[in-house]
Amino acid sequence: KGGGGGSGGAKFGYEAAVCGGIPIINALQSCYAGDVVHEVMGICNGTTNYMLGKMETGADYSDVLREAQDLGYAEADPTADVEGHDVRAKIAILAKLAFGTTVPVESIPCMGITGVTAVDFEYARLLGCTVKLVGTAARLSKYGERDGALSVYVAPKVVPNSHLLASARGCGNAVAVDSANLGVASYTGPGAGRYPTASSVVADVRRIADGLCPPDPFPLESSIELDNDYTSNFYVRISFADSLGIVRRVGEIAERRGVSIHSILQNPIDDRGAADFVVTTEACKLSQVTGMCEDVAGEDFARGPPLCMPMLMEDFARGP
Amino acid sequence: KGGGGGSGGAKFGYEAAVCGGIPIINALQSCYAGDVVHEVMGICNGTTNYMLGKMETGADYSDVLREAQDLGYAEADPTADVEGHDVRAKIAILAKLAFGTTVPVESIPCMGITGVTAVDFEYARLLGCTVKLVGTAARLSKYGERDGALSVYVAPKVVPNSHLLASARGCGNAVAVDSANLGVASYTGPGAGRYPTASSVVADVRRIADGLCPPDPFPLESSIELDNDYTSNFYVRISFADSLGIVRRVGEIAERRGVSIHSILQNPIDDRGAADFVVTTEACKLSQVTGMCEDVAGEDFARGPPLCMPMLMEDFARGP
Repeated sequence: KGGGGGSGGAKFGYEAAVCGGIPIINALQSCYAGDVVHEVMGICNGTTNYMLGKMETGADYSDVLREAQDLGYAEADPTADVEGHDVRAKIAILAKLAFGTTVPVESIPCMGITGVTAVDFEYARLLGCTVKLVGTAARLSKYGERDGALSVYVAPKVVPNSHLLASARGCGNAVAVDSANLGVASYTGPGAGRYPTASSVVADVRRIADGLCPPDPFPLESSIELDNDYTSNFYVRISFADSLGIVRRVGEIAERRGVSIHSILQNPIDDRGAADFVVTTEACKLSQVTGMCEDVAGEDFARGPPLCMPMLMEDFARGP
Repeated sequence: KGGGGGSGGAKFGYEAAVCGGIPIINALQSCYAGDVVHEVMGICNGTTNYMLGKMETGADYSDVLREAQDLGYAEADPTADVEGHDVRAKIAILAKLAFGTTVPVESIPCMGITGVTAVDFEYARLLGCTVKLVGTAARLSKYGERDGALSVYVAPKVVPNSHLLASARGCGNAVAVDSANLGVASYTGPGAGRYPTASSVVADVRRIADGLCPPDPFPLESSIELDNDYTSNFYVRISFADSLGIVRRVGEIAERRGVSIHSILQNPIDDRGAADFVVTTEACKLSQVTGMCEDVAGEDFARGPPLCMPMLMEDFARGP
């Protein structure tokens, strides 16, 4: 009667594994049975969300990291949080639940928040946006239902202030699910902490005791193809030592890589030896924009490689 | 062999009954087993939320109602929506799920949106707020856990723009649950519509087929006392024909009713024969503020009874 695993009838609940205080696993297991999920996006790491919130109000990355460590949010070795590895593990679980696809963690493109600086929040503000570390699992063809390949990735994302993901503050987590029948539904709450986590564990124990745990804790494996060279609009911040013709040069590189530029933003230049500007792109593939960034990094005027972040556009921004 | 009801083992799912596309019934049934809910608040009526959203941007109540009827949101007889009766029925269900208390619908204080005008949105904006029709079920003593009586009511509420309830736009619904372990968690999504409703019904059917429906669709009856003379800060809009000493007179009436005034707001007066000002109160009982409004309505300067709305304060406003 219920062995230790295998086919012995063991029940497995893991509600606290992703977004500790948000019943997102239960929701994906039992509320989308007759629906088709297009996309799951989540802020699933409270530590980095806390840090980005502080940086939004002007604090410096290294100061904020030390503060998060002092508060016990960040580990002494913060790599798993700030490099996005924790979010990567969680979006793999959410992708499995939403799409039935086992995504090898190593195959998930993953960028953390270590390259994000105060100036990115300034440019984001010009765009009516903020920056959030987001795990995303999205079908390429939103309306193709079962025929679009699946992209899963982690990156700091430029998110419109009007989007519900922007409203996750402090250590709070938030998950948005876009589906054929419901449109966008969202779930917010505490991401971690002993009480939320314990509460989710108790709810699991109670469900198991009542026989209400799904017989298959993960959905059956689907045959959705993976394609992690995802498509998005991108934000590209180029740091440069000022000289003539930079915008023209960047334009040439973008054209060669097939990247169409949507807008160019530049703050007033205080220091001509250490300036930056931002290019936003039309929708293109990750490989195109990273190719463009590599080419730009090889130019004489470049001070290091550009910072490239996907942008969440308004069509997924409105919420219900 | 599930009979037609009673103790015959019939299963009953009703996810679509409240907030059609939001799995709030499932969440309250199975995710708060080890937790203690303090408060449930919800925007559960898409029609009135649509109307208030239009009024916020300057439209007139009667124009908006006609538009909502043309769009098929509002019935030819819109009473159930605009008088709050639909929200009243839904908050009674949510109160039963969250607190195990059967609340007679007739006992629930219920105010609709028919008295809300464009000027209320102007004053709300001065307060950093908007107006939403909200169903509320709250324990009087938030930290007394099991000893506080329960208040259940429906009213247009003055809601801070930073609150997640303010972010429910258009026909969207939103429910916030404040509990001992999770703090504030929230659920947003479409409130109605054929696809969301059908999707919730399919999820119920699937849960029943899989044997995953809770054996008791409603929790056991608890012994929580009901006290619908709820406590809140209030917004009171007083319409008057201008004369001397009105604020002093209102102050005297408030004092006699034991109502402490928090602030007084007055827009520039265009027409001295048809002006208004707003008093916000410290926390007091509904009976005190309605008594004050009755007294004010009896004064010579009053043009009709004041409009009185509870205010959601920032301590419940921050979200996760």
